[in-house]
Amino acid sequence: MRATVIHGPFDVRLESVPDPTIVLPTDAVVRVVASCVCGSDLWAYRGIRPTAQPHRIGHEFVGVVEEVGSEVRTLRPGQFVIAPFSICDNTCPHCRNGVQTSCTQLAWWGEPDHDGVPSDAGQGERVRVPLADGTLVATPEHPGEALLPSVLALTDVMGTGHHAARSAGVGPGSTVAVIGDGAVGLCAVLAARRLGAERIIAMSRHASRQDLAVRFGATDVVAERGAEGVAHVRDLLGGLGVDAALECVGTKESMQQALDSARPGGMVGFVGVPAGGPELPVQQMFSSNVGVRGGVASVRSYIPELLEDVWSGAIEPGLVFDLVLPLDQVAEAYAAMDERRAIKSMLRPATA
Amino acid sequence: MRATVIHGPFDVRLESVPDPTIVLPTDAVVRVVASCVCGSDLWAYRGIRPTAQPHRIGHEFVGVVEEVGSEVRTLRPGQFVIAPFSICDNTCPHCRNGVQTSCTQLAWWGEPDHDGVPSDAGQGERVRVPLADGTLVATPEHPGEALLPSVLALTDVMGTGHHAARSAGVGPGSTVAVIGDGAVGLCAVLAARRLGAERIIAMSRHASRQDLAVRFGATDVVAERGAEGVAHVRDLLGGLGVDAALECVGTKESMQQALDSARPGGMVGFVGVPAGGPELPVQQMFSSNVGVRGGVASVRSYIPELLEDVWSGAIEPGLVFDLVLPLDQVAEAYAAMDERRAIKSMLRPATA
Repeated sequence: MRATVIHGPFDVRLESVPDPTIVLPTDAVVRVVASCVCGSDLWAYRGIRPTAQPHRIGHEFVGVVEEVGSEVRTLRPGQFVIAPFSICDNTCPHCRNGVQTSCTQLAWWGEPDHDGVPSDAGQGERVRVPLADGTLVATPEHPGEALLPSVLALTDVMGTGHHAARSAGVGPGSTVAVIGDGAVGLCAVLAARRLGAERIIAMSRHASRQDLAVRFGATDVVAERGAEGVAHVRDLLGGLGVDAALECVGTKESMQQALDSARPGGMVGFVGVPAGGPELPVQQMFSSNVGVRGGVASVRSYIPELLEDVWSGAIEPGLVFDLVLPLDQVAEAYAAMDERRAIKSMLRPATA
Repeated sequence: MRATVIHGPFDVRLESVPDPTIVLPTDAVVRVVASCVCGSDLWAYRGIRPTAQPHRIGHEFVGVVEEVGSEVRTLRPGQFVIAPFSICDNTCPHCRNGVQTSCTQLAWWGEPDHDGVPSDAGQGERVRVPLADGTLVATPEHPGEALLPSVLALTDVMGTGHHAARSAGVGPGSTVAVIGDGAVGLCAVLAARRLGAERIIAMSRHASRQDLAVRFGATDVVAERGAEGVAHVRDLLGGLGVDAALECVGTKESMQQALDSARPGGMVGFVGVPAGGPELPVQQMFSSNVGVRGGVASVRSYIPELLEDVWSGAIEPGLVFDLVLPLDQVAEAYAAMDERRAIKSMLRPATA
């Protein structure tokens, strides 16, 4: 089959690789119907995260079960499934606590699984899925083409935006600022609206992203950044900060923006992968009682409830996909996101 | 009257100072019945926080209203009142959010109030109380000598321990570790028990403090610190961390202990004044989804509910006072706490 391999900065290639097979009895093999490029894939693409040796890439995909191992209990060939961005058993104490990204059998697409068996990554034609019962969520039936983007968004960005909102305790009546207008930030806007936020301020300076933020439920858009951005947010709220600041970027500046935007006693929900590990200013947090909670999103735990709203049409996170390409144009899918010509690129294997 | 003045490291003196009077119509004058020394007072006492010039000290006191200004509506002379450790109007948006320590008219005992008028500190015979309606909480009647210590504990340590537990989301069934066996840490144990925690691990290596922790509801005591302490906590919980780690010290080491003790997705509730501003490791927080929330406790907001339980005898936080001295022995009250001969010292003015 064919799958994407990253070789180094700005060098992703579709290559021929071995077909996946059932290795462990808890495995499934899934034929990919759609996958996508994640903002975090760009770290390797840009060379910020060095690529020591060529490796498979891609951790967001949906598809159809082709084969299951002898111990797989909940899935059968032919089912359409959503694969969250990490592999889990969904039964360990951390999974039961809703933190599947700390599963005791946690593994990542494209890396060896918990048993040491290499797994496939998502940007390919087929994938061996370890711990299939725990990892995959089947949809009620095959989604049509119209629903497909929103179902695909549940593999990462929608769940991650939701995690930011949940981590910050967004609920009915909350005032919210969203820092970051990438796919995750936009989904955080949608998640905040879905959770009943009353005021949602999207921080964005790009017209197309501002438009989507408003479509997703933003009540206000603030284009300024830094101290000016914070001042504008406070102005919109009569001088107060927001109950919840959702940090969806991962830089020191964006985290500071989030901390400064929150009201005393408010919360920062953060899902931006910390770039280079900016540390948090504990004295500011102490003085202001602004808390910080979040991290690598337990998307697996959120899929069932979010899928229900996707299926009913209540939310349409798939609108973040503004570029759809055949899998063999994967290099362009990366370039378009890197150059911010696309918010998020979807890839369709010819075998889909 | 006489009041405590700090002159420099290890030099606190009881001195003659002007009697307080009503300066603003929102003031009250309170005759102090009991005050106490705070762990944070020791920072100045030890010279860690330099004393540029001699100043009044003490921010925890209870007493009897002697006089009120013309605009004071809720208090009258003769009432027994609790003064939280900061001054607030209790009506601004931050106060209404329950964060009185970010009041728009916030002020501190012994410093100029929001209007620039110097205020008295607590370790004296009388105190001018700015914003008396907002700051003070009257008790149902005068507490007897038996209740007095627990009522006094509501000025700071009990509310601060409660804030740690609330910030970390402690509730029925929670597993909790408390880092710090000072008066605040011990009160955090009591607060966790009161909120329904199922397992409360007190980290302490001092027999008398361990005993009080158990009396306050600790189910386990761990004497080790650092990695050994974390390993012991995890052992007690079948290899998992706690739902809530309550950080009641304020050093980089204690914060790390708290972060390492929490389970994935757990919370650190922190109330230890950050000593020198150790920053928080955002990458660890991201990977583990352990959140951090807390800060300078909004004790004012907690007094009514905690007072109810003190008054009924349901909780007895006053047990943290293991040394009671007349006000003129204030120097010994500090020395005993500094040398850890006392958990917490109470001071009784001769005029009480």
